[in-house]
Amino acid sequence: MAQKKLNVALIGYKFMGKAHSQAWRTVGRFFDLDAEPVMKAVCGRDEAAVAEFARRWGWETSSTDWREVIGQKDVDVVDISTPGYTHDEIAIAAAEAGKHVFCEKPLCFTVAQAKAMLAAVRKAGVKHMVNFNYRRCPAVALAKKMIDSGAIGQIRHARFTYLQDWLVDPQFPMNWRMRAEAAGSGAHGDLGAHSIDLARYLVGEIGEVVGMQKTFVTERPAEGTSHGISATAGEGTEKVTVDDASVFLAKFTGGAIGTFEATRMAPGRKNFNRFELNGSKGTLVWCFEDLNYLDYYSTEDPGDRQGFRRIIATEGVHPYAGAWWPPGHMMGYDHTFSNAAADLVQCIANDKSCSPCFQDGAQCVAVLEAVDKSIDGGKWAQVEVIK
Amino acid sequence: MAQKKLNVALIGYKFMGKAHSQAWRTVGRFFDLDAEPVMKAVCGRDEAAVAEFARRWGWETSSTDWREVIGQKDVDVVDISTPGYTHDEIAIAAAEAGKHVFCEKPLCFTVAQAKAMLAAVRKAGVKHMVNFNYRRCPAVALAKKMIDSGAIGQIRHARFTYLQDWLVDPQFPMNWRMRAEAAGSGAHGDLGAHSIDLARYLVGEIGEVVGMQKTFVTERPAEGTSHGISATAGEGTEKVTVDDASVFLAKFTGGAIGTFEATRMAPGRKNFNRFELNGSKGTLVWCFEDLNYLDYYSTEDPGDRQGFRRIIATEGVHPYAGAWWPPGHMMGYDHTFSNAAADLVQCIANDKSCSPCFQDGAQCVAVLEAVDKSIDGGKWAQVEVIK
Amino acid sequence: MAQKKLNVALIGYKFMGKAHSQAWRTVGRFFDLDAEPVMKAVCGRDEAAVAEFARRWGWETSSTDWREVIGQKDVDVVDISTPGYTHDEIAIAAAEAGKHVFCEKPLCFTVAQAKAMLAAVRKAGVKHMVNFNYRRCPAVALAKKMIDSGAIGQIRHARFTYLQDWLVDPQFPMNWRMRAEAAGSGAHGDLGAHSIDLARYLVGEIGEVVGMQKTFVTERPAEGTSHGISATAGEGTEKVTVDDASVFLAKFTGGAIGTFEATRMAPGRKNFNRFELNGSKGTLVWCFEDLNYLDYYSTEDPGDRQGFRRIIATEGVHPYAGAWWPPGHMMGYDHTFSNAAADLVQCIANDKSCSPCFQDGAQCVAVLEAVDKSIDGGKWAQVEVIK
Amino acid sequence: MAQKKLNVALIGYKFMGKAHSQAWRTVGRFFDLDAEPVMKAVCGRDEAAVAEFARRWGWETSSTDWREVIGQKDVDVVDISTPGYTHDEIAIAAAEAGKHVFCEKPLCFTVAQAKAMLAAVRKAGVKHMVNFNYRRCPAVALAKKMIDSGAIGQIRHARFTYLQDWLVDPQFPMNWRMRAEAAGSGAHGDLGAHSIDLARYLVGEIGEVVGMQKTFVTERPAEGTSHGISATAGEGTEKVTVDDASVFLAKFTGGAIGTFEATRMAPGRKNFNRFELNGSKGTLVWCFEDLNYLDYYSTEDPGDRQGFRRIIATEGVHPYAGAWWPPGHMMGYDHTFSNAAADLVQCIANDKSCSPCFQDGAQCVAVLEAVDKSIDGGKWAQVEVIK
Repeated sequence: MAQKKLNVALIGYKFMGKAHSQAWRTVGRFFDLDAEPVMKAVCGRDEAAVAEFARRWGWETSSTDWREVIGQKDVDVVDISTPGYTHDEIAIAAAEAGKHVFCEKPLCFTVAQAKAMLAAVRKAGVKHMVNFNYRRCPAVALAKKMIDSGAIGQIRHARFTYLQDWLVDPQFPMNWRMRAEAAGSGAHGDLGAHSIDLARYLVGEIGEVVGMQKTFVTERPAEGTSHGISATAGEGTEKVTVDDASVFLAKFTGGAIGTFEATRMAPGRKNFNRFELNGSKGTLVWCFEDLNYLDYYSTEDPGDRQGFRRIIATEGVHPYAGAWWPPGHMMGYDHTFSNAAADLVQCIANDKSCSPCFQDGAQCVAVLEAVDKSIDGGKWAQVEVIK
Repeated sequence: MAQKKLNVALIGYKFMGKAHSQAWRTVGRFFDLDAEPVMKAVCGRDEAAVAEFARRWGWETSSTDWREVIGQKDVDVVDISTPGYTHDEIAIAAAEAGKHVFCEKPLCFTVAQAKAMLAAVRKAGVKHMVNFNYRRCPAVALAKKMIDSGAIGQIRHARFTYLQDWLVDPQFPMNWRMRAEAAGSGAHGDLGAHSIDLARYLVGEIGEVVGMQKTFVTERPAEGTSHGISATAGEGTEKVTVDDASVFLAKFTGGAIGTFEATRMAPGRKNFNRFELNGSKGTLVWCFEDLNYLDYYSTEDPGDRQGFRRIIATEGVHPYAGAWWPPGHMMGYDHTFSNAAADLVQCIANDKSCSPCFQDGAQCVAVLEAVDKSIDGGKWAQVEVIK
Repeated sequence: MAQKKLNVALIGYKFMGKAHSQAWRTVGRFFDLDAEPVMKAVCGRDEAAVAEFARRWGWETSSTDWREVIGQKDVDVVDISTPGYTHDEIAIAAAEAGKHVFCEKPLCFTVAQAKAMLAAVRKAGVKHMVNFNYRRCPAVALAKKMIDSGAIGQIRHARFTYLQDWLVDPQFPMNWRMRAEAAGSGAHGDLGAHSIDLARYLVGEIGEVVGMQKTFVTERPAEGTSHGISATAGEGTEKVTVDDASVFLAKFTGGAIGTFEATRMAPGRKNFNRFELNGSKGTLVWCFEDLNYLDYYSTEDPGDRQGFRRIIATEGVHPYAGAWWPPGHMMGYDHTFSNAAADLVQCIANDKSCSPCFQDGAQCVAVLEAVDKSIDGGKWAQVEVIK
Repeated sequence: MAQKKLNVALIGYKFMGKAHSQAWRTVGRFFDLDAEPVMKAVCGRDEAAVAEFARRWGWETSSTDWREVIGQKDVDVVDISTPGYTHDEIAIAAAEAGKHVFCEKPLCFTVAQAKAMLAAVRKAGVKHMVNFNYRRCPAVALAKKMIDSGAIGQIRHARFTYLQDWLVDPQFPMNWRMRAEAAGSGAHGDLGAHSIDLARYLVGEIGEVVGMQKTFVTERPAEGTSHGISATAGEGTEKVTVDDASVFLAKFTGGAIGTFEATRMAPGRKNFNRFELNGSKGTLVWCFEDLNYLDYYSTEDPGDRQGFRRIIATEGVHPYAGAWWPPGHMMGYDHTFSNAAADLVQCIANDKSCSPCFQDGAQCVAVLEAVDKSIDGGKWAQVEVIK
């Protein structure tokens, strides 16, 4: 185990806070890292709850004041697991305090925010990474490696769908994810952001988009308020102010064309984050609901033996997989977070750039924003290029 | 076997002519029909070839003059299996001669043509049907029946892809399907038309669309000429004048939103005609590459036992299947043509309207045309309503 | 179309008679044969029914006397589609009359019968073929070709299951397939025979077996009598005298080991005729419920790109497929019969041996009989070698 | 978090030691337990290596003397993760020291050993559990629940395969798992034991068996010695003294019939631990390579909507899943160990019997031994009933 320590402060302790905590506890057990992460501090609004969380997960201290935690000398990395509307303020403050920043996706809600965040981390010279965790599935990292090696030639079609079904029931009550103030958007920024990031990672930059969005259930039973943002409910119901579904067409600058679809209204699709890429020499298909598999078709196989090859990406030769278990011993959701943590630690310990960085996060926001613009205008919109 | 006879004349004897001939030979063997189809005449350009075709398939006579054949008194049904650019002239002539018309898809290339064809068959009072054969897969007909019974509630998402790969190789030579004069369009009218028809059948009318198209390989080795239309080749290559891929977003008038993608550039996808429909109570998924299966998810199954149900639609209780084999004895491509022929014969014999009729074919052309218009304008386009 | 004619007489006109008739009608349309089969005569017990069958399917004449039909000078091939207990008598008579014999599986019920049949066709010098139709699925024929080329190395494991579910309901009434006199055995000879034939075709000879059988539902509602064999029913029910399920282990003479399971009691399995073969260099998997696919794994693929390759065996390069449709246009159950008819016609026209021949059919019976013997003795039994 | 502590001592620190350590670190984070496990001590042969392991995984102390560790007053549970040949001695000593015992599978090699172990834990009155971890996949636990509720009626067919491929290459070198002294048997006890345990859990007791085994590669490159047992290698190779594959038929005492196949020689099968159970009312299928899914067919679904239902067992309503992530957030291999640890802790904290206990482990060994006996005798063998 590494002698060098890397002290981490986690801001936020709900779903993502739990996932990040499990990653920090686990990463050093499986990976041989050049620095050992230390779970220094966790921060949240509710003093008793965050203290109990710290005790359960092994954080050394807990706090309700994120500015104080960021100011601690013994904190090296600030890990932001809070809802998206808080990301820019915390990240900029962390950068200004000279801390490396690990930020949940989406980076933020607007290109303007994103530019400010990017400027802050660049000015501070700190490491910055956005947690698009699906890049860290072994099968996805393998896809990237294969594409870079020319396995499927030049990509022509990119087909992304991210389907869930937790809002199908109109009686499912409101929560912060359905309020524009807290969540920015609905399926668009929550799910679509993942697809856009994978598309940029695997295919390249998107130049133009045209889209549409829909809110199928426009009012839901009220939940009250959450995250400090008031609800607009009356008579026991509350108006949904984000999209249930977001769909768009894309033209990649490299010549490929793409379709993107994100929804929370697809019965039976639990976390159906899927892509299919058709290139001039082959095809790659991946879906999170079978996360350990990558389907690959090559036009270079012998004529009568061509077929989709279902690769179980759990062998020692596959990215990340060697750190875990013997072949065929499947990985789950949380492994992607540990893999991300491993990459982050190694980049910091060896003074290398992280990927995806805040520029990636900002470019993703630019695509999301262009889709919104295309909807407002009823026509194709250019994607701003974030330098 | 029925006493009543129905004399069929087939125009065209290539791929579709073969498929239709097999259907006419087969349909009366498996189905108990109210009229027995008789393979009266087949018509094509090449006298010797069409004569040999007639002999092989059991057509009583052959001819090179389609107007003459249509004029024969003993012909009841004209079956048009020629390329799309000839459909309108033949169909209108057939109607004027008082013959029932069975026409391959797409009905024609323009809304103007479609209206003329529709007017002709209506004026003549003959039966008219377009051969969107995928409606005749038992699993697709079952989907229709289930949707009508409310199995998936109100449809919110329609996701259609029709992917093939036969043009991936840039050395694959030109043929008539890549020339605008003969084929009208590429993947758009060839594959997209099927998806649009299934969408109208299963979901409802499309009100607005926005799309894009792409020709990835713009020149191909010349083939010469075919179907009487001159090639534009020079120096051994010929310019491709149709799309390789066509993609569009759609707003259905009933509130659903849709994505459509047709391409001949998806390695490994041979005839991947697939749809997924997400409703307020469930999901249905079908793909021709597994044509005998229908996947069904219901939110009304018990909470811990919900899952996609893979229905093998080959039981006696399923549409069409009872006419064929015992359960589990799979059906193939040609069965869809026999099923269509059975429906056509029964409609004519019992003086009922056929489905899909020329109005359906015309409305499909209207959607295709609206997509073209949206591409020209770079923005959403309204779909003309064909009455 | 070929000038030479081959006159066929079909004995039996139920499920198999229908399948064979469709094959004879169809084969010359798709295949370029060296002789054209002519549907000369069909024979069955019920005069009116068989006459109607002849009219519907296009047989020139019908008869109730199979000996007379066999005696006709203008019959070249006798096609036996009757229940198994009649095969030996008809086949021997046909051979003695100098006719080529095409016989449904299983060849017969006992090794003694099989030897007599084999002696008769050899003495007569006629062609003889058993209709193990699953050999004629393009994907299965491709598997054979790949095995012969060494694609999976030396086979070590052979795993055969043939699962159906039509007897799950104890209220499903008796029919001849559940009576030992008419059917010989239950799942064992009906389904197991197919698996054994595929095993011999793909893997090699079986030397020793040990098995077990079970009848889960021992009495069923009576149906009366059928096929001239009296029922043993009393009080409205009848005793089932065959197995519902038959399972055995096998040692192949070439060193592989095998498991075989046939049942009619597997809910959801409609015609689940599946094999998996593990060799020293790869694996092949096929199942009739996805009949157009062959799954192939090769240890010779690059280490990080190994996976089961799902070959759609419908391309022109695949066995049989070129005679039918373009790539991806799926085949069904009946195509296997047409493919078999094509092979038979070509063997007769060109004076070549058929495969599988009566020796193959006999050796299959020998394996079935050895399993019975192993059950009687409660221990491993040797399989008799039929020369 | 619970006030009550439960001190654990782990014996063994290789593959299983790592899996158990991850479980002990993780279980209290996700589950609300009635006692908090404390990682007190770890024990292994190599002093430096085990000390480093303790530091990495968070064990308080390390030792090379397992007897000493077992004797520690502050140890409540002894967790045995060593190779099978050591289990009996350690477990009996632990029981005699009054410790609860958690033992990796297989419990031991012989029925005689198993009886001694069972007697020891019973005499000591301690809790005892065998780590058949696949029972702890949510999908498998769901299968158990469904079977108990009658979802598939009376089970008739049990079809178990456990296929791996890590020994396909004859150049793969020897290790302790291929030596009879250390491993007892090969695929039989390693993989077959898992299948037998799942069969007993889901179907019931096995009364009679008949089997066969095979070693396809009889000599391998020598590795030297390991686990203190001398190798028998000469000339750089070593004789393999266990089976590569083990196959048997089974008669369950409840009337079902079963097939079992375990092998390390199936190319492409990485950890293909699969079962299919056919009952009088339905079917259940599970495979570890898709561990989060359970396939379910019910004959009680409406006739035209029957199909295999693919349940993603990751919802809050499914066993164990509620403790982890939101729906669709897949679980992997290590989660099964955490789930087992949770069950063990709750049983100890609440003074309840564990399952599977040593009696279960012993009965599993009795089945393994009966298969060996059937092979020796070439005939069916009775399974001894362990009381």
